[in-house]
Amino acid sequence: MTLSATVVGGSGFTGGELLRLLVGHPEFEVAQATSRSYDGKSVGSVHPNLRGTDLRFSDPADLESVDVLFAATPHGVSMERIDAFRDAADTVVDLSADFRLDSEAAYDEWYDGHSRPELLDEAEYALPEINRENLAGADLIASGGCNATATILGLYPLFADGVLSGDEQVVVDVKVGSSEGGAGGGEASSHPERSGVVRPYAPTGHRHEAEIERFLGTSVSFTCHAVDMIRGASATCHVFPDGPVSKGDLWGAYRGTYEDEPFVRMAAGGSGVYRYPEPKAVAGTNHAEVGFELDPSNKRLVVFSAIDNMMKGSAGQAVHAANVALGFEETAGLEFQGLHPVGAP
Amino acid sequence: MTLSATVVGGSGFTGGELLRLLVGHPEFEVAQATSRSYDGKSVGSVHPNLRGTDLRFSDPADLESVDVLFAATPHGVSMERIDAFRDAADTVVDLSADFRLDSEAAYDEWYDGHSRPELLDEAEYALPEINRENLAGADLIASGGCNATATILGLYPLFADGVLSGDEQVVVDVKVGSSEGGAGGGEASSHPERSGVVRPYAPTGHRHEAEIERFLGTSVSFTCHAVDMIRGASATCHVFPDGPVSKGDLWGAYRGTYEDEPFVRMAAGGSGVYRYPEPKAVAGTNHAEVGFELDPSNKRLVVFSAIDNMMKGSAGQAVHAANVALGFEETAGLEFQGLHPVGAP
Amino acid sequence: MTLSATVVGGSGFTGGELLRLLVGHPEFEVAQATSRSYDGKSVGSVHPNLRGTDLRFSDPADLESVDVLFAATPHGVSMERIDAFRDAADTVVDLSADFRLDSEAAYDEWYDGHSRPELLDEAEYALPEINRENLAGADLIASGGCNATATILGLYPLFADGVLSGDEQVVVDVKVGSSEGGAGGGEASSHPERSGVVRPYAPTGHRHEAEIERFLGTSVSFTCHAVDMIRGASATCHVFPDGPVSKGDLWGAYRGTYEDEPFVRMAAGGSGVYRYPEPKAVAGTNHAEVGFELDPSNKRLVVFSAIDNMMKGSAGQAVHAANVALGFEETAGLEFQGLHPVGAP
Amino acid sequence: MTLSATVVGGSGFTGGELLRLLVGHPEFEVAQATSRSYDGKSVGSVHPNLRGTDLRFSDPADLESVDVLFAATPHGVSMERIDAFRDAADTVVDLSADFRLDSEAAYDEWYDGHSRPELLDEAEYALPEINRENLAGADLIASGGCNATATILGLYPLFADGVLSGDEQVVVDVKVGSSEGGAGGGEASSHPERSGVVRPYAPTGHRHEAEIERFLGTSVSFTCHAVDMIRGASATCHVFPDGPVSKGDLWGAYRGTYEDEPFVRMAAGGSGVYRYPEPKAVAGTNHAEVGFELDPSNKRLVVFSAIDNMMKGSAGQAVHAANVALGFEETAGLEFQGLHPVGAP
Repeated sequence: MTLSATVVGGSGFTGGELLRLLVGHPEFEVAQATSRSYDGKSVGSVHPNLRGTDLRFSDPADLESVDVLFAATPHGVSMERIDAFRDAADTVVDLSADFRLDSEAAYDEWYDGHSRPELLDEAEYALPEINRENLAGADLIASGGCNATATILGLYPLFADGVLSGDEQVVVDVKVGSSEGGAGGGEASSHPERSGVVRPYAPTGHRHEAEIERFLGTSVSFTCHAVDMIRGASATCHVFPDGPVSKGDLWGAYRGTYEDEPFVRMAAGGSGVYRYPEPKAVAGTNHAEVGFELDPSNKRLVVFSAIDNMMKGSAGQAVHAANVALGFEETAGLEFQGLHPVGAP
Repeated sequence: MTLSATVVGGSGFTGGELLRLLVGHPEFEVAQATSRSYDGKSVGSVHPNLRGTDLRFSDPADLESVDVLFAATPHGVSMERIDAFRDAADTVVDLSADFRLDSEAAYDEWYDGHSRPELLDEAEYALPEINRENLAGADLIASGGCNATATILGLYPLFADGVLSGDEQVVVDVKVGSSEGGAGGGEASSHPERSGVVRPYAPTGHRHEAEIERFLGTSVSFTCHAVDMIRGASATCHVFPDGPVSKGDLWGAYRGTYEDEPFVRMAAGGSGVYRYPEPKAVAGTNHAEVGFELDPSNKRLVVFSAIDNMMKGSAGQAVHAANVALGFEETAGLEFQGLHPVGAP
Repeated sequence: MTLSATVVGGSGFTGGELLRLLVGHPEFEVAQATSRSYDGKSVGSVHPNLRGTDLRFSDPADLESVDVLFAATPHGVSMERIDAFRDAADTVVDLSADFRLDSEAAYDEWYDGHSRPELLDEAEYALPEINRENLAGADLIASGGCNATATILGLYPLFADGVLSGDEQVVVDVKVGSSEGGAGGGEASSHPERSGVVRPYAPTGHRHEAEIERFLGTSVSFTCHAVDMIRGASATCHVFPDGPVSKGDLWGAYRGTYEDEPFVRMAAGGSGVYRYPEPKAVAGTNHAEVGFELDPSNKRLVVFSAIDNMMKGSAGQAVHAANVALGFEETAGLEFQGLHPVGAP
Repeated sequence: MTLSATVVGGSGFTGGELLRLLVGHPEFEVAQATSRSYDGKSVGSVHPNLRGTDLRFSDPADLESVDVLFAATPHGVSMERIDAFRDAADTVVDLSADFRLDSEAAYDEWYDGHSRPELLDEAEYALPEINRENLAGADLIASGGCNATATILGLYPLFADGVLSGDEQVVVDVKVGSSEGGAGGGEASSHPERSGVVRPYAPTGHRHEAEIERFLGTSVSFTCHAVDMIRGASATCHVFPDGPVSKGDLWGAYRGTYEDEPFVRMAAGGSGVYRYPEPKAVAGTNHAEVGFELDPSNKRLVVFSAIDNMMKGSAGQAVHAANVALGFEETAGLEFQGLHPVGAP
């Protein structure tokens, strides 16, 4: 018996990705895809890959009763509409930042405050690799930020396994694709201005730092760069451990944490063109690649982590979390293995 | 009961695409992926999207007995090794040009002759849209050329339905991605030289003309351009009908031919960004998009056709044809719907 | 003694290109760069390559008296403001379409009519290769359209030299970069949607047909495609001559027409990666490349022509024409030779 | 009176860039461009932007006597041929790594030793911003490495001005274009594999660390990533000062060091799309952009530096140094201001 699902904000990039995943998901049937701007238009007119479906956008004000509602709305919308979302659905998966942090104070510090702070305790962070046990049966799920996800997946095993203590200097240098900016975009996102860039943005004070610090238990020095790809987030984490760390320690921590994970694989050296994690190698998939290298001369550990920001960093993570929450096969609807070769996907 | 399948030439781009499709195919199990250069290495070390499998390349000289063998070897290899291929497998699907044409004379004219012309009659062209009836039960299948496939899919309904007579002037201007050049590549395919190009190649005398003429029954004036994408072939066909043609005639021909086809969809006008066929809209999928526009002032008909050259133009077409030949669901293993947004895939 | 020059519409792409050329031009000094939106801001804040200058944008309502005024405004603005432009400057070079055609009827057919048709006779088309004699001393100059320029440069010698009669079927298939859409741009021009495209636009009825027909004396079948580059327009012209044409005829026509031209060079065959005209090979320069190939089996002639749409197709052509009009060295300010390698410039 | 110049290794990317600069340089005349592979061929057949010249490649074994010789050969060649180079020319500018370091021990540690260590003292590092005084009259000049140049230009003023002591933790995360790999390239540099990448390479132990440490007097933690552009190197330097640092301190250091430099400009904040240094903004030029941001929460200073690796990072730096050495105008031949918009140049 399939469950019914609604995507609020279905005309955006993340909403479209959710629709793509849900349309192909064996356990879900899409009931509604809402969009104020495209109300009544076919979903395929906005997302050309979905031209084969006969879905049409509906008005976000008219939410039908469904089993699961995915909210792919801008930050701030979900906290305003959360009661309507929960009235409409037993399980709500929010892809904005509205329920990612666990305290009102954090929202005061990093965002513009929070209008429903009493719900923060209730919400579960969607990343199964670090929160699987709490996701089972959860009915309010907060999908993580893409850059935060890449960073957390790269570093979490080292903290969990005690290789790092939390006192280390950690620099996280992230490179991201243009889909992070969402559909529409302004002048900086126009093709002539955005093509071929290596452009610092949010060089300091990026909001994803808050999530990273929440789940790693330590602060990081975080800087983002826009580069020429559409999908993808790649985090390079430069860490200075207090004492000697061996490759064996590192492999132990990563294997111990990830060996049974269906969506995390290691890429640390080896032969061929793709020796370290690369967004290209996971484009279109829910996989994360993690790898590392030791720099003995600088007593530095370099950790690489790559995801598709639209998938593992957003819609894929949301569906994965819903699978866990609802007791489905974890990989249901997320089996796509990606392409080779593939360009700037 | 799954069938066993071998991919000869598994380390090339087309071979890798076949492996990806077969690994995810419900009716096949991959027995062997051969590669002389990578014998013994893991498939994932060459095709990073397949890191999750534990397949290893084997020596092409040691072919096991299997149900189906896909040959993704350079032109000329299959005609030399065809007896070994057919000894090893009941069904052989060849992705080279070796069995696409139907006469020795054609190979003399367009290629360097043919060493096994007696087999040409036996081979069936893999494009189900124009040869479905003959594919059922076929045991030697010749997958079409990518540029020929795009062109044929765009124009075939007009000839089949009598909108065009075959006497018309037809110009086919094709734009293709860099994966057509295959893995390896030389200086012209290096990233600095190949990025951002609009580069005429094979401005005249392209070998795919032979296939196009075989299946459309008319000659075309064909020119190819390399453009900056990895996957994709886009054919723009400029046709000058002898007499008046209406939009109704055109829609009639296309709908009549394609309305039940699982992998062809029309994109002819409409609203939004993607109003005509685009390779981006079908990247990674086995879909073809076909559309058209009438130019009354020039008495011209412009037909657009877009495919992923690695899929509908090669490995996807091969698997589709095998599905037809073996009586499987036609879409088995080919369900991926593509991505939005997606860059230069 | 340098002449003073104003650029109206200086914050757009074409305006910025004009400013770049004029700042480096030995005979000009930039008096004003106007921009309503950026009035008072530094030119370098919009055009980062001009950060070294201390120019600031001024209000387009306050035009100083100068020697030459270049108008880089949207179509329709120049015909409204032409009196103010001519009051301010002795020589006006307009880069819009407002003065490219020679009759009110043509503007009625291809545009939304013309408010100052009496000036059409007075205006001179800026392309020196076909209109040099009339440009000397001209005081109202209309810079050509980029796609029209590429097409005209490719075909003009064949008509001028009598190789073609004007009765031939001519298909022009153009591929253009994203700078043609101008600064700003909407959703279709956003990086995620525009990257990696082969996108038909204006498949029929493109306005540049009017210019092409004016100067070639024959109608052409014209279709444009957006491809993944920023600068560049490449025209592939498929021509079906009435009778036999030899390579010698073609070389004769092209050499005869272009041998003394400082900005046109032939690229027709030869060795190496760049054997035919390519936008990359002329990116950033005022050069056009023209080449051809004969297709005997189809009795077809294929002509290739490549320019940088911002230079030879717009600002460079305008400066070249101004050089001719004012008696300067033709290549003054236009000496840049381009880069190798260069990506999707 | 112009000086005669030879480029050894003229068919490579750096050699081609040198030829472009020298052909347009008011003080130089190109005598020879050598290439073993292309001996006798026209320079324009390899470098399409130089089709307008009539230069032909000559055999590197036949060096004429000239005023200046630029060697654009792979590492190791110059130290072997240095006597021939110096016999042929009064001034030798070497663009390889062969004379960048100042001790045999350094070559033993970072390279494969040095065959002519007695010349290391004699060679002057080409970066005028840090070595101008020693360049005047120098007759053996070693052009710096591109990544080293970007890093040094970003950090040098902070050490020179005492803002940093040399004991700080410094992480340098560099993003580079594909032209760094040179012409030719292998599988990893092919367009399908190289497009759209964020690919770690030399994650640790990059040889440019040696140069950086030589000129900054401190070690840095250095990691390189290949990204999708052709020209460009962008260094993001994450620095953790021992004590408080103000924006005023930083502006003081940078302005004090660079205010009279013709090729360094600051980009630190401001409005518009281009607020920090970007390779696009300097593509094709000899300019470097430097900028910074303070991250108070992490007590971190982030310095951004962007150059065109082929220009300021190689051929442009070499010509600049030659200008200084020979007493020419420093900007001679290096006046090009770059383009806007420009893609992945």
